[in-house]
Amino acid sequence: MTLMYDQLLNIIRDVDRISLNETILEQHSKGMTYHTPQKPELVVYPQTKEEVSQILTYANERCIPVTPFGVGSSLEGHIIPAQGGITVNLSLMNKVVEVRPEDFLVKVQPGVTRSQLNKELKRHGLFFPVDPGADATIGGMASTNASGTNSVKYGTMKDQVLGLEVVLADGRVVRTGGMAVKSSAGYNLTSLLVGSEGTLGIITEITLRLQGIPEIIVASRALFASIEAAGNAAAAMLKSGLDLGKVELVDQATIQAVNAYKNTDYQEVPTLFIEMSGSEQAVKKDMELAQEIAVEEGCQLFESESDSLARAKLWEARHHVAFAIQAANPGKGLLSTDVCVPISELPNAIKETRKLIERHGVEAAIFGHVGDGNYHAVLSIDANDPESVKKIEEINQQIVAYALAKGGTCTGEHGIGLGKKQFLRLEHGEAVDIMKEIKVVFDPKRILNPGKIF
Amino acid sequence: MTLMYDQLLNIIRDVDRISLNETILEQHSKGMTYHTPQKPELVVYPQTKEEVSQILTYANERCIPVTPFGVGSSLEGHIIPAQGGITVNLSLMNKVVEVRPEDFLVKVQPGVTRSQLNKELKRHGLFFPVDPGADATIGGMASTNASGTNSVKYGTMKDQVLGLEVVLADGRVVRTGGMAVKSSAGYNLTSLLVGSEGTLGIITEITLRLQGIPEIIVASRALFASIEAAGNAAAAMLKSGLDLGKVELVDQATIQAVNAYKNTDYQEVPTLFIEMSGSEQAVKKDMELAQEIAVEEGCQLFESESDSLARAKLWEARHHVAFAIQAANPGKGLLSTDVCVPISELPNAIKETRKLIERHGVEAAIFGHVGDGNYHAVLSIDANDPESVKKIEEINQQIVAYALAKGGTCTGEHGIGLGKKQFLRLEHGEAVDIMKEIKVVFDPKRILNPGKIF
Repeated sequence: MTLMYDQLLNIIRDVDRISLNETILEQHSKGMTYHTPQKPELVVYPQTKEEVSQILTYANERCIPVTPFGVGSSLEGHIIPAQGGITVNLSLMNKVVEVRPEDFLVKVQPGVTRSQLNKELKRHGLFFPVDPGADATIGGMASTNASGTNSVKYGTMKDQVLGLEVVLADGRVVRTGGMAVKSSAGYNLTSLLVGSEGTLGIITEITLRLQGIPEIIVASRALFASIEAAGNAAAAMLKSGLDLGKVELVDQATIQAVNAYKNTDYQEVPTLFIEMSGSEQAVKKDMELAQEIAVEEGCQLFESESDSLARAKLWEARHHVAFAIQAANPGKGLLSTDVCVPISELPNAIKETRKLIERHGVEAAIFGHVGDGNYHAVLSIDANDPESVKKIEEINQQIVAYALAKGGTCTGEHGIGLGKKQFLRLEHGEAVDIMKEIKVVFDPKRILNPGKIF
Repeated sequence: MTLMYDQLLNIIRDVDRISLNETILEQHSKGMTYHTPQKPELVVYPQTKEEVSQILTYANERCIPVTPFGVGSSLEGHIIPAQGGITVNLSLMNKVVEVRPEDFLVKVQPGVTRSQLNKELKRHGLFFPVDPGADATIGGMASTNASGTNSVKYGTMKDQVLGLEVVLADGRVVRTGGMAVKSSAGYNLTSLLVGSEGTLGIITEITLRLQGIPEIIVASRALFASIEAAGNAAAAMLKSGLDLGKVELVDQATIQAVNAYKNTDYQEVPTLFIEMSGSEQAVKKDMELAQEIAVEEGCQLFESESDSLARAKLWEARHHVAFAIQAANPGKGLLSTDVCVPISELPNAIKETRKLIERHGVEAAIFGHVGDGNYHAVLSIDANDPESVKKIEEINQQIVAYALAKGGTCTGEHGIGLGKKQFLRLEHGEAVDIMKEIKVVFDPKRILNPGKIF
């Protein structure tokens, strides 16, 4: 037992909630992707904001690094304690504090997962729309400004978070925002904290906007001869003012990979996956209009389903894209690019990315959130082979350089973390100096998730 | 001519763009409301970001206060140079820099007005959805995080601004955000600057998201026996997942004031004004559903129109509410409250506000953005009569206290400015200290719009 252990036990007073166990330290050393693992010295599991405050006060006095941890689904190494120290695992702070159905809002602790929240909300006829794929915690999703397929209609985390309770590095507990849907009262600290990747404070409560569960959801799949035709169809749908829910694009080679992985026989052409939700009559009318638009742009097949099982089946190829690459490369790590470009640039960006990847002779799934201009190339990477790492990192750099040249961003929804630090100044120039000064306002001793973002 | 005039002329090199004229100074001394006027020492009209940068470098070196000015439509005295100094009038920086119709975005200079922008966008089949009522400049709207009736569907300014070019107090020009619809790259400085009321920098370019002009717009008016019934109907519509555009509530006494002012005979009951937009068939179906919901909640009359003139006529009573109070009190100033409460609290908040106002024996228009929980009481105020000022300020304080007790905000869309400074710490507590430290990062000598927010 270390001195730190004894001192934190003095705060937590529960041996089951502090750990030096090697397996536990190992679990907190790595994310979902290829970044080099690093173990914390100790993992602590607070249950209250007071405990979080005391842990941070303790760590701040001694300049000990502190890394917050949710379920570890980060794709950019956010939860790797790059400088050791204390990992604060927030999974025990997993209460849905208050549902206010008539106000369309909920207060949750940071360790509540997306699926746990939606289960709780269902009986109120409500749901929380942000779906990044993984069953992440709400705290983690707020920290990376996560989004996913639903953001065309509902926006990203920053659009859902109305207020936060945050413990600052020195242990102060502050509240930002509130329960009003909009506010112009002072600086928007809530939006500053959302996406700050645990470097400005530890979130202990989140107030979220909710949505009414729509009467009906209709999903469609539309096949095209080319990426351009699919892109043009998506653009025309956006422009027509249709109330689009999801608009996803998967390229030809990715459909081929899915077929190889799942032994399926999806037609191997660029495919748009569309979803709309709302009142039954309105959605049916809008999906008819979407089909007309798709056909005008040369769509070869347009299928729609509203039953939930049939919808899942229709979208199956989309859901399997990331797994297809993983399955084809057992035992290897993954790198997911995450650039986001101006909407009209997406079809070309995907085409150029596919060419680049073929030139390097590697495999990748490529799929895009067309309504946002955000797309991912999921690449297999052998972390033990310097050549493989070098090649994949080069591909990543070129994809980012292309996106930045078009006015885009190096990360649409995953965050900077460890893996994209080299791109931040390329993208934001001198504004990064301001970000660093803001970091010092919140965390003068730089104990909060050090080594991330900057 | 003063020394400052000569020195600024050295930067601007155009006598037509610097003024010491009394009438000009007078025009820049006051906003639309009751706040005490204060003249600047000088007004300057830059045309480029380089000029803005040089003006700020000059002012910063000498600690001269600088107040940005758009068209002066602020309702909270933002553009009153409370400590004198230089007013930077941005009306000559009124170029639509670049329309990118395929990307649904536009870059504008800060002096572009809302109507100017929408005129320019129309030929591209696009529009900019934020409509605060006044024909404000985009720079001013960004600075106060303005919104208005469209925010139920499209959100507030912070949801539209993708990127900014900003001149900091020391003359540095930085860019935040970019042209991607979403990003998780570093701290969200864009959202921090939106709503910062000219206290962190002077905005010189704004990148905005745009929307496709919908195929059809349908407006409706629904009459109810009580504020509760109207509120319940609005809540049920929100919960049903209908794609609502606008949902506005006007109380009975306000309809009476409109009838007195315009000599109309609107039925004097609480009235909901609703608008939906999108594809023709979908909107018609959704408006039918809205009518069914309204009738279930006891709606006595539900009328809809889709033709633009007929729509305007249907909503006329809503459009006249603020003018009705002004007309009834010629020569007096106005104070508009701007609290925003959790959505379900709105009907009660409006009722309590009406009672409070009646208790004080004054007149007021009361109307609310039901979908947001934001509402305004527009009160006549005689700035020359200390009793009148005291009484109205007391009413304002009680309305804010009520909203804060319900978890709301003192300002949903107008900003803190001069008039709501006393409420900021009541609302945000210790978070205000963080805001003040952030202010110092951007503007260490506190030259930017001093006296506002804090």
